Amino acid sequence: MLITSSSNDRIKHARRVREGRERDLVFVEGDRLVGECLASGLQLYACFTTAEPPAAQQTLLERIKCPVFQLSDSVLESLSDTTSTQGIIVIAERPSPALDRLFESQSPLLLGLDRIQDPGNLGTLVRTAEASGVNGIFSFAGSADAFAPKTLRSSMGSAFRLPILPNVSGLGVVETCRARGLKTVVATGEADLLHYDYNWRQPTLLILGNEGRGASTEIMNACDARVRIPLHEPVESLNVAAAGAAILFEAVRQRRA
Amino acid sequence: MLITSSSNDRIKHARRVREGRERDLVFVEGDRLVGECLASGLQLYACFTTAEPPAAQQTLLERIKCPVFQLSDSVLESLSDTTSTQGIIVIAERPSPALDRLFESQSPLLLGLDRIQDPGNLGTLVRTAEASGVNGIFSFAGSADAFAPKTLRSSMGSAFRLPILPNVSGLGVVETCRARGLKTVVATGEADLLHYDYNWRQPTLLILGNEGRGASTEIMNACDARVRIPLHEPVESLNVAAAGAAILFEAVRQRRA
Repeated sequence: MLITSSSNDRIKHARRVREGRERDLVFVEGDRLVGECLASGLQLYACFTTAEPPAAQQTLLERIKCPVFQLSDSVLESLSDTTSTQGIIVIAERPSPALDRLFESQSPLLLGLDRIQDPGNLGTLVRTAEASGVNGIFSFAGSADAFAPKTLRSSMGSAFRLPILPNVSGLGVVETCRARGLKTVVATGEADLLHYDYNWRQPTLLILGNEGRGASTEIMNACDARVRIPLHEPVESLNVAAAGAAILFEAVRQRRA
Repeated sequence: MLITSSSNDRIKHARRVREGRERDLVFVEGDRLVGECLASGLQLYACFTTAEPPAAQQTLLERIKCPVFQLSDSVLESLSDTTSTQGIIVIAERPSPALDRLFESQSPLLLGLDRIQDPGNLGTLVRTAEASGVNGIFSFAGSADAFAPKTLRSSMGSAFRLPILPNVSGLGVVETCRARGLKTVVATGEADLLHYDYNWRQPTLLILGNEGRGASTEIMNACDARVRIPLHEPVESLNVAAAGAAILFEAVRQRRA
């Protein structure tokens, strides 16, 4: 079935998913991400391709068990989130991991993100978190969507594997983690303890805050400890994704020692 | 003098600078970056503001010793690189640091960037490099421009302070650094040595490679050592700015110990 009008109802619905206006669905674009989405076992609802998918996409398409719609070039361009589309998009169920999954490890390392705004930063943090052995992410209310198209591209599929709990209360997360025996630590320029002097072998929730303002005062006050990355003057702060990488790989170093 | 036409010669010239088509000049936008540019002592050639600059910009404007042109809103929008302009742009001399400045430290830590393409990654690396005490950056031929508007915004002014040598030969840099007593190390997934097992107290040139392909084979072969950041499966790579932060702050840890 070839769709040639961008006002077709399925296309309008898919566009709503792309814009994050359908809470339970995600918009996944490109060979690699669609492959990662398939591997995660999420339910697929629709797939959109070009009228004549390239031969290299055949193996991927054969694995897709949902209705497939072919789009004219102009309709595909109207739906795509990228300037050079790879010509494959799926609409999938949004992952909804159970809280317990984040605490399965013997010594959990969890990440709390307090209102991270930039999709590129958020996606990079998700990817870095998985790479460093983080067991799951709490995305506090007011953060960007970890499944927005741009964020997904930056996370390179990690968002489909790592449990991410969205739109949670930051203070609630601190309480939950403390009740389960984790230390709660927030990264801030206002701290005495350097990030590499903290003992990351302990079960820990690390909280990173908003790009401009850092973590909220309530979160700062609720945490057990504050850590600071030592910066050469006159630099006052790091990009939050860079800060996350510096701290999380220090945790890796300590945990592997 | 109020400029009301976006085809005015000064505006056309400034737009060429914005697009990187004037080799010896840089386009600097926004209160903060213009302030950093002023502090760096670079020669300024022109300043563009709104017809009625806000009071908060007065102190900044008083420090600017070059011709100031006021622009109508539409002309300013045509010139601005951002969607919500702060209404101040300067055209300044491009920094051209002497090679010797990079080797002034007793135990230099230098960064070589091999064809980093994304302006956000490049800017974040410049900021992270300054924050971690790197003494200077070699940007190999084929890399993005460290002074492009988007890169400057990500670097948050670090590009005005840290010596950056653009468009250099990667192999030439490896030779130069070796001749000056530095070890040369490249980050790659294909290495036995973990990044935290390398001795970063030594004078070192660290090379980070292109987002998709990593450093070139010639660079890999020319370096003294290769280091790898240990990644949890199935993640195969990090964002290059995250990788840079993980390695450079391990160097900070070792050098401060």
